[in-house]
Amino acid sequence: MTSPFGKHILAEYFECECTYLDSEPAIRELMLEAASISGSTIVGNIFHHFNPHGVTGVVVIAESHLAIHTWPEFRYASVDIFTCGMHLDPWAGFEYLKQRLQSRKWLSKEIIRGTMDEGLSSSAHSGNVSSGI
Amino acid sequence: MTSPFGKHILAEYFECECTYLDSEPAIRELMLEAASISGSTIVGNIFHHFNPHGVTGVVVIAESHLAIHTWPEFRYASVDIFTCGMHLDPWAGFEYLKQRLQSRKWLSKEIIRGTMDEGLSSSAHSGNVSSGI
Repeated sequence: MTSPFGKHILAEYFECECTYLDSEPAIRELMLEAASISGSTIVGNIFHHFNPHGVTGVVVIAESHLAIHTWPEFRYASVDIFTCGMHLDPWAGFEYLKQRLQSRKWLSKEIIRGTMDEGLSSSAHSGNVSSGI
Repeated sequence: MTSPFGKHILAEYFECECTYLDSEPAIRELMLEAASISGSTIVGNIFHHFNPHGVTGVVVIAESHLAIHTWPEFRYASVDIFTCGMHLDPWAGFEYLKQRLQSRKWLSKEIIRGTMDEGLSSSAHSGNVSSGI
């Protein structure tokens, strides 16, 4: 693995208008693409479809992991993009997922991992389609 | 899956004195036990050992996921315990891992997931062996 110093983005995608929140193959493809767009090296993945609905999945990368949990009945998906090392861009993955999930309202938080000095410091962001943030 | 409302604990375990931070089978067993202790239902797991050192692993649970990344060379492990639904106790998993990893200094942050109202609100904690926190 690379340096433990990294960025962990926690994202909440609300009001998702895409039609595939309940499709395990589609969500898997989406997350693998988000991992690639972030610049990560994929080493494995595991996805699961719940009965009656919902998909959970994780992409293990050489630089940590990406995770998603969808609740189609709430048009909601939670996402984690945790990338260690300085050369990755987890925000590229965040933006890609926001677009593909067609989320109309979102929250995100970036947390610094792997250093005692930063102390899990965080910065928060939010936006919606009308604000265009 | 259960309700999207959940707790996500981000933990940083520093100064780990256990001898198995680089053992994929031991870290896998540890994380599966932490998932059980938290009260979760395990649906799958994926673990990977890196060359020359370091273990990454994720336990997918019906209530979201647990993840770990270890850097034996820094005696450090990052852990996420994300549990949705009200009946689980992710802090039990956190305490179990703290003991088993023999961490002498740790940071943790609990983040509320799945609700726009709470807005990814968080509370932070830290401790070390001498403070006994």
